[in-house]
Amino acid sequence: MARGFKEKIQQKNSENSGFGDNASGRFIKKNGLPNVSRKGMNIFNRFSWYHTMLDLSTFQFLSYLVIAYILVNIFFAFIYYLIGVEHLTGIDKSNPVNEFIDVFFFSSQTFTTVGYGRIAPVGFTASLVATFEAFLGLLTFAIATGLFYGRFSRPRAYLKFSDIAVIAPFKGISALMFRLAPFKNNSLTDADVIVSAAIEVMEDGSPRSKFYQLKTQLSKINTLALNWTVVHAIDEESPFYGFSEDDFKNTDIEIIVHLRAFDEVFSNTVVQRASYVTREIVYGARFEPMYYPDKQNLSTVLDLDKINDYKKADLPASKEEQQ
Amino acid sequence: MARGFKEKIQQKNSENSGFGDNASGRFIKKNGLPNVSRKGMNIFNRFSWYHTMLDLSTFQFLSYLVIAYILVNIFFAFIYYLIGVEHLTGIDKSNPVNEFIDVFFFSSQTFTTVGYGRIAPVGFTASLVATFEAFLGLLTFAIATGLFYGRFSRPRAYLKFSDIAVIAPFKGISALMFRLAPFKNNSLTDADVIVSAAIEVMEDGSPRSKFYQLKTQLSKINTLALNWTVVHAIDEESPFYGFSEDDFKNTDIEIIVHLRAFDEVFSNTVVQRASYVTREIVYGARFEPMYYPDKQNLSTVLDLDKINDYKKADLPASKEEQQ
Amino acid sequence: MARGFKEKIQQKNSENSGFGDNASGRFIKKNGLPNVSRKGMNIFNRFSWYHTMLDLSTFQFLSYLVIAYILVNIFFAFIYYLIGVEHLTGIDKSNPVNEFIDVFFFSSQTFTTVGYGRIAPVGFTASLVATFEAFLGLLTFAIATGLFYGRFSRPRAYLKFSDIAVIAPFKGISALMFRLAPFKNNSLTDADVIVSAAIEVMEDGSPRSKFYQLKTQLSKINTLALNWTVVHAIDEESPFYGFSEDDFKNTDIEIIVHLRAFDEVFSNTVVQRASYVTREIVYGARFEPMYYPDKQNLSTVLDLDKINDYKKADLPASKEEQQ
Amino acid sequence: MARGFKEKIQQKNSENSGFGDNASGRFIKKNGLPNVSRKGMNIFNRFSWYHTMLDLSTFQFLSYLVIAYILVNIFFAFIYYLIGVEHLTGIDKSNPVNEFIDVFFFSSQTFTTVGYGRIAPVGFTASLVATFEAFLGLLTFAIATGLFYGRFSRPRAYLKFSDIAVIAPFKGISALMFRLAPFKNNSLTDADVIVSAAIEVMEDGSPRSKFYQLKTQLSKINTLALNWTVVHAIDEESPFYGFSEDDFKNTDIEIIVHLRAFDEVFSNTVVQRASYVTREIVYGARFEPMYYPDKQNLSTVLDLDKINDYKKADLPASKEEQQ
Repeated sequence: MARGFKEKIQQKNSENSGFGDNASGRFIKKNGLPNVSRKGMNIFNRFSWYHTMLDLSTFQFLSYLVIAYILVNIFFAFIYYLIGVEHLTGIDKSNPVNEFIDVFFFSSQTFTTVGYGRIAPVGFTASLVATFEAFLGLLTFAIATGLFYGRFSRPRAYLKFSDIAVIAPFKGISALMFRLAPFKNNSLTDADVIVSAAIEVMEDGSPRSKFYQLKTQLSKINTLALNWTVVHAIDEESPFYGFSEDDFKNTDIEIIVHLRAFDEVFSNTVVQRASYVTREIVYGARFEPMYYPDKQNLSTVLDLDKINDYKKADLPASKEEQQ
Repeated sequence: MARGFKEKIQQKNSENSGFGDNASGRFIKKNGLPNVSRKGMNIFNRFSWYHTMLDLSTFQFLSYLVIAYILVNIFFAFIYYLIGVEHLTGIDKSNPVNEFIDVFFFSSQTFTTVGYGRIAPVGFTASLVATFEAFLGLLTFAIATGLFYGRFSRPRAYLKFSDIAVIAPFKGISALMFRLAPFKNNSLTDADVIVSAAIEVMEDGSPRSKFYQLKTQLSKINTLALNWTVVHAIDEESPFYGFSEDDFKNTDIEIIVHLRAFDEVFSNTVVQRASYVTREIVYGARFEPMYYPDKQNLSTVLDLDKINDYKKADLPASKEEQQ
Repeated sequence: MARGFKEKIQQKNSENSGFGDNASGRFIKKNGLPNVSRKGMNIFNRFSWYHTMLDLSTFQFLSYLVIAYILVNIFFAFIYYLIGVEHLTGIDKSNPVNEFIDVFFFSSQTFTTVGYGRIAPVGFTASLVATFEAFLGLLTFAIATGLFYGRFSRPRAYLKFSDIAVIAPFKGISALMFRLAPFKNNSLTDADVIVSAAIEVMEDGSPRSKFYQLKTQLSKINTLALNWTVVHAIDEESPFYGFSEDDFKNTDIEIIVHLRAFDEVFSNTVVQRASYVTREIVYGARFEPMYYPDKQNLSTVLDLDKINDYKKADLPASKEEQQ
Repeated sequence: MARGFKEKIQQKNSENSGFGDNASGRFIKKNGLPNVSRKGMNIFNRFSWYHTMLDLSTFQFLSYLVIAYILVNIFFAFIYYLIGVEHLTGIDKSNPVNEFIDVFFFSSQTFTTVGYGRIAPVGFTASLVATFEAFLGLLTFAIATGLFYGRFSRPRAYLKFSDIAVIAPFKGISALMFRLAPFKNNSLTDADVIVSAAIEVMEDGSPRSKFYQLKTQLSKINTLALNWTVVHAIDEESPFYGFSEDDFKNTDIEIIVHLRAFDEVFSNTVVQRASYVTREIVYGARFEPMYYPDKQNLSTVLDLDKINDYKKADLPASKEEQQ
């Protein structure tokens, strides 16, 4: 594959993709993140724990909080146990297990600052540890407050991209099309999109990825409330000009999409990336409409389940085939 | 209605409105949001609960918090009751109702971490549930803290738009005008406005909405402290050029306004949208001034109640009428 | 004053100041806010309590918090007192004053969720009020947390402007100059400035303020770490071209400055405004340097106390005087 | 050093660096901040304590919190002790030390609102102080919450710059190169870089720093996931055109780098600065690659430890040497 395409492609490739021409695999993973791993440096310096906490799913995040809470209380329970249960009032001293259970609950009552007082510290050491634990508890909840806020106030575009791109008929020629739609009750305006293609070509006998900017019919729309079908016409200025169905099937292509919009609730710019590789491009197809007037004809309904719906469509003969 | 207007309109329509040409009803609702509903996908994925929480009125938001607080305590009261009131000290065991009331208050004293200790858990199960409830309580208040902050730090423009737009005399021709004013003690600078019109025209026998960019006399002002009257002169470049009073009354028109400004307190861009449909456009009227010097002549007073005040005004004969 | 200046000024005035031409007093107050007051609408709608809370001084803000705390506790103390002190354990019932004091402290122990338990509610009504008060307490501190964060994370430029502007000699002609310097340990980059002048001229027999954009030698600097002297050369394109010392003294002038910069700590754009009226413009003066190398010649020292230091300087004869 | 270079440099210097031409030492410190100190004004006005808190290391920040906690409790312990231990229940009155220890722990139990109740205030004065301390405790943790959130939500670029810049062969001429790479799991897009050089030249017999904008091959890249080698070709338009190895070694040069990118997690612009002085520029060297395909050829690996790796490289003869 990828033999001789460089000669076919007449558009000048762009060099500011930020990716090298000999990188491996797809450039942008299906989740929108670059397909790059890092090594070197101290591993603790390589991770931003805040970014990590924000990327966890809600279930993972809450689980970690609960586990941390239990571990902290077990830790402090051991300390109180070592200090001696006689320095805590109200402990059930019938057997060591009950003693440990009671210091565990004393710890949790201290950490959460609920402090019923049925169990309370007496004497210097136990009081000092409790003093420190209550302080730690409050700091922990201060941090948790920040993490919760950071998680749910994190601006996100909430856009659903079609799983596939299509090569569809368009104004007498072919066009590469994909579409996207906002799927939550957020409100996006001033959306713009940058589309580029990484195409593997042979250069000096070895395969190299070249990046090309793809022109789109509209690169900006005012209100992103319905779906947006992004259209790249395959005309003379397109790197895909003259590509046959086989060319599309046998070349390593990756369409990289970078979308920016303004979210009115966050009053912030949000970005989302998507990418389509060779096997995700359907040749000779046309998207079906995904919005329609509601029954009272007073509003428009956007049906998100139709985002991947397409039907087969004949493409106009390509220039090469015509010859 | 709307027959034959396409021929009248000479300006090229724009295609980046983001709305389809066969959408129904008004495009932008009176509250500034797009008139679109969504279906498909799992309904829980379709809503951002954070956006929803931020869009609630203060009264709704506080009510939900109180209701959630009561429900959580009833839930935990049931659990403590099932575990058995003998595992809590200080319960009034005179009758089951009193028992339930006391476990309910024990629950609330745990959830809020007030923990008086008059009622306190004894034994493993009750202590464990209390341990978890206090933890849940703190997390809940961490989330509430984030929601409160998210709600009141949410950047908003606080602009009042006039309820109506007018077609007023302007430099020998007519102009479409509407106005807006900041109504709170925020401070806006660098305001710019984008105005477009959706006009329903007949195309191939069926009505279609076409979008036109409307040029404004000023599209940017430095300090938005007084009212701003946005003026679109109806000259040769306007899609409304040649429209008679009847044309304005009988055509489905929607003027869509998109305003952006920089809020100095939030140090953030804020946006606000407005829209005027056919019945909200007054033909032959002129806005009355809404600010004047104060009595000491040292400051300017902006009277917000006058924002919709206008008086009748004769328009110059339109080109067509002149002919 | 202000007679006939319109003829003198050849620059076209700009219309996007956002201020009217018959506004009164200075346009921008010395604190950088527009000199506009509002009336009309419900007064509660006219104020953003969040903006108000952020504009309070630290002392005012803390005082309001303390006062609110005391009032809330007095309010709840009354309620507990009305319910009856027999529904609270541990109350000192020696006399009504002591009773009230004890319910007051019980209220504060509930509101802050400290809940020692020496005084604790017994029975339905008192427990219910306490349940609600603890909840209210936590919500209040959730709101206070948001306000504290909103207050200290509010992006601000922390720029000190010189109290006066000067008309100084500059490259053979005169120039209007003022200067500004960052005074805190924040770090500003990409600063740009927009300077305009409001000049009162006679038009149709009545005084009107006209706005003129003033060109500056540099309108953008990369790093705002030292002072920045903004220079407007009074050449043919300046509205002040040909102004004599008397013209500067007898005309109502207001120089309006709008500065934007990027704060690296907040990662946000910050803005600050300043204004200079006629009496704050010193004719024939030159600013003295305000930074110098440190003793070890390894760093630069910026002396903020010198920001207003100037010395008298002869100006080149103006064009008119030359004639 | 620095004699006569002005004649050599043909590019016009730029004046909007924001630095003076007689400043001392390097302009940008190795940590990216300007090398400027301030004096004058009240010292408390010169510091933004919030900026200071955000700049502390995590260890310093936590240490300050712990120290403040201990000091506050010692302070309140003294007050309770002066009021008299008889106004607190449950105090161990065996000796003054034990008394003080117990009031200290009572203070901490109040400040954290844990309030076990084993020690509780009785009477007006002690109760009033405790009321105030609990309130202060909650406000303190409200502030701490804000500081924690401010610290970890502070947008930062997390970019590692190479410690050295190199003068490397590039397309037949020489080029100044340095590189940078993201080292954390954040995701940067739309990166742009502004590079300028401060060169000390003799002017009127005294050394002066002149600033020159340096053109780069790419000034913008779309996705900053791998390393970015910034290249300034030393052609006719470069201020370094004609510089020999000795010129590079004997001139006071400072390369100032200002990088901006968009962080997708923070949805915010982040900036980072770097600077290279004469001794940090290696003449005749070429950076070694720092990324390569992984073993499965499915992803790209970025090795951060190689960021400073270079090997010697011959430079093409400079124009002057050729002559």
